[in-house]
Amino acid sequence: MTGAPTQFIDQISMNELDWLTTGTGILGSGGGGRPRIGMLRLKTLLDDPAYPDEVEIVDPTTLDADATVTSVGHIGAPTIGIEKLPRGDEELEALRTLEEVSGESVDALIPGEIGGANSFAPLITALQSGLPVVDADAMGRALPEIQMDTFFINGQTVNVAVLVDEKHNTVIYRKIDSPRRFERLARQTTVEFGGTAGYAYPVLRGAFVREYSIHRTLSLSYNLGKRVHKARQRNDDPVAEVSAVTDGVQLFSGKVTDVERRHEGGFTTGTVCVDALETGQRFEIDFQNEYLRGRLDGNTRVIVPDLIALLDSEMAEPVLSDDIQFGQRVAVVAIPAPDLLTTEAALDVVGPAAFGYEQEYEAIDPFE
Amino acid sequence: MTGAPTQFIDQISMNELDWLTTGTGILGSGGGGRPRIGMLRLKTLLDDPAYPDEVEIVDPTTLDADATVTSVGHIGAPTIGIEKLPRGDEELEALRTLEEVSGESVDALIPGEIGGANSFAPLITALQSGLPVVDADAMGRALPEIQMDTFFINGQTVNVAVLVDEKHNTVIYRKIDSPRRFERLARQTTVEFGGTAGYAYPVLRGAFVREYSIHRTLSLSYNLGKRVHKARQRNDDPVAEVSAVTDGVQLFSGKVTDVERRHEGGFTTGTVCVDALETGQRFEIDFQNEYLRGRLDGNTRVIVPDLIALLDSEMAEPVLSDDIQFGQRVAVVAIPAPDLLTTEAALDVVGPAAFGYEQEYEAIDPFE
Repeated sequence: MTGAPTQFIDQISMNELDWLTTGTGILGSGGGGRPRIGMLRLKTLLDDPAYPDEVEIVDPTTLDADATVTSVGHIGAPTIGIEKLPRGDEELEALRTLEEVSGESVDALIPGEIGGANSFAPLITALQSGLPVVDADAMGRALPEIQMDTFFINGQTVNVAVLVDEKHNTVIYRKIDSPRRFERLARQTTVEFGGTAGYAYPVLRGAFVREYSIHRTLSLSYNLGKRVHKARQRNDDPVAEVSAVTDGVQLFSGKVTDVERRHEGGFTTGTVCVDALETGQRFEIDFQNEYLRGRLDGNTRVIVPDLIALLDSEMAEPVLSDDIQFGQRVAVVAIPAPDLLTTEAALDVVGPAAFGYEQEYEAIDPFE
Repeated sequence: MTGAPTQFIDQISMNELDWLTTGTGILGSGGGGRPRIGMLRLKTLLDDPAYPDEVEIVDPTTLDADATVTSVGHIGAPTIGIEKLPRGDEELEALRTLEEVSGESVDALIPGEIGGANSFAPLITALQSGLPVVDADAMGRALPEIQMDTFFINGQTVNVAVLVDEKHNTVIYRKIDSPRRFERLARQTTVEFGGTAGYAYPVLRGAFVREYSIHRTLSLSYNLGKRVHKARQRNDDPVAEVSAVTDGVQLFSGKVTDVERRHEGGFTTGTVCVDALETGQRFEIDFQNEYLRGRLDGNTRVIVPDLIALLDSEMAEPVLSDDIQFGQRVAVVAIPAPDLLTTEAALDVVGPAAFGYEQEYEAIDPFE
């Protein structure tokens, strides 16, 4: 994504919520949890006189080298978050425990991923704790597993991590020797916790976050949502705005004619078929929570880590893999992955092979 | 077990090791891990000039009311401990982490169970840390699951618990709302850790340990082993000594004619058949790591929480459920459970129903 946002944000208050919901939903690539649920939790706190009216957003380049930063959010199957509502302070409790166990005082929060509910989680914890949130994240999108994070890809250790459930059952991980092992341990604990848990991890230094986070993705989400909403108001094509803001390419539009969906190993996996009835062409998208590969008449046109946005064709509202409906009219936009996801080290962890695809990553070509 | 040991021990040094190995093995009821492996680890440290020559053993009745006590040991499938040797300081690392996270300084260690390797684990950690070991435990035998412990049965919370693997990967549990949940969480982590892990949990107060531990089980093991070894030397019947020391009853002797053994859910479960060729009678023992139920010609004669010792008929050396050999000549001794395991609260957790048996607990009747 080379598309720099036209406007950097330095706070988030009631006005930004709808734009941010649409923008983070699009970058979520079909997963990351429902942004609307996160948004509604944030809105409740912003409405509550006991909490501040806005969250301070800080640019990653302004972080002190030795500042202490951590990610907070929810781990688990997105569908469960709808039926088993969180207590609302799991992440705050995880943050407090991380501070206590590490002996560190956290200076700022950062989203682990952009997309869905986990973009909003740090904003909520920020209101509860009075901390600012860094305008950046560690995926530039949503991805299904913990190790698929630019911090872990670039050598950050699992020094301290905390999971907390709605009863404040607490599990703390220290000195775990690999992010993949941490993913397995945390996934099992989350299942025992009933399918979702709030998290805080790891203890990051400001200098590392400056170098290995994907910058200004909250601003990007905000601008993306704003442009889409403005286009709707002008009766312009909002899908075209998504491509414009993200340097993306609209690959297809048509009607959902089939959805094959399985729940495996804590994930929602499957394939959605979109048919263009006029041309007879078919576009298929494979997913594991997030959309991973798009094929036009059997030929791969876009593959992870590039982003695939499945959008309602009228409104450009993002459609989660969990929500796809038979007969829905949709547009497919491919969005180039952030540079930090396409390094050799990153492709080992988030490239096609990491999801079982026997093909090389080829960046989406806007002119193909 | 009303059989008070004839001699209380106040230290354990090289001389006590063989007796303690036999005695803890018998009380292990077929599980608890191989005592010989624990004994050999302890022996190595006692031989090493860098460590003290003996472990101080303290009577539970002498503990200060506000003393801080914790259990250390290994969790996992016993068979794995043979092939995947521990690093040797997992429990010490778990103890140090428990102290750090709880902010408590531990005054004494206590075995979580008597029987097998977990009787020796606290003795080893005691040598490494300089702490004394309480002459007591929380089962009076070995039992397969964490919640089956007199501390948890009597209301102790899972306030802090630590698991550490041989690479010092560390998982800390805090404020877990039930011992059964802790059992499930810890079992999963142990599987991810390759099948075994060192533990330290929970933070106990001296007054609670005085009331809810099973007293003087290290002394009992020592005396039991001593009496068996002395009987062998005198060419007396060592199996009779086991009954005498433990108020036990010899129920059967014969030859192992069948062993059915499955590995399920991290446990070794199955049934062993012993036939008395002269009388045509058959004794069957069901086990889940530990021996749980003994039936004479189909009629239950002894059931958990009463102990079942399966002994080599010549030497009275205990036979673990993992080690039973076809054709082996064995004697079966039933040993009354400690009083703390036969309360109503305890029978809910360690009685027949907890193991899926649809029958009431009936204490072994020595005169039946």
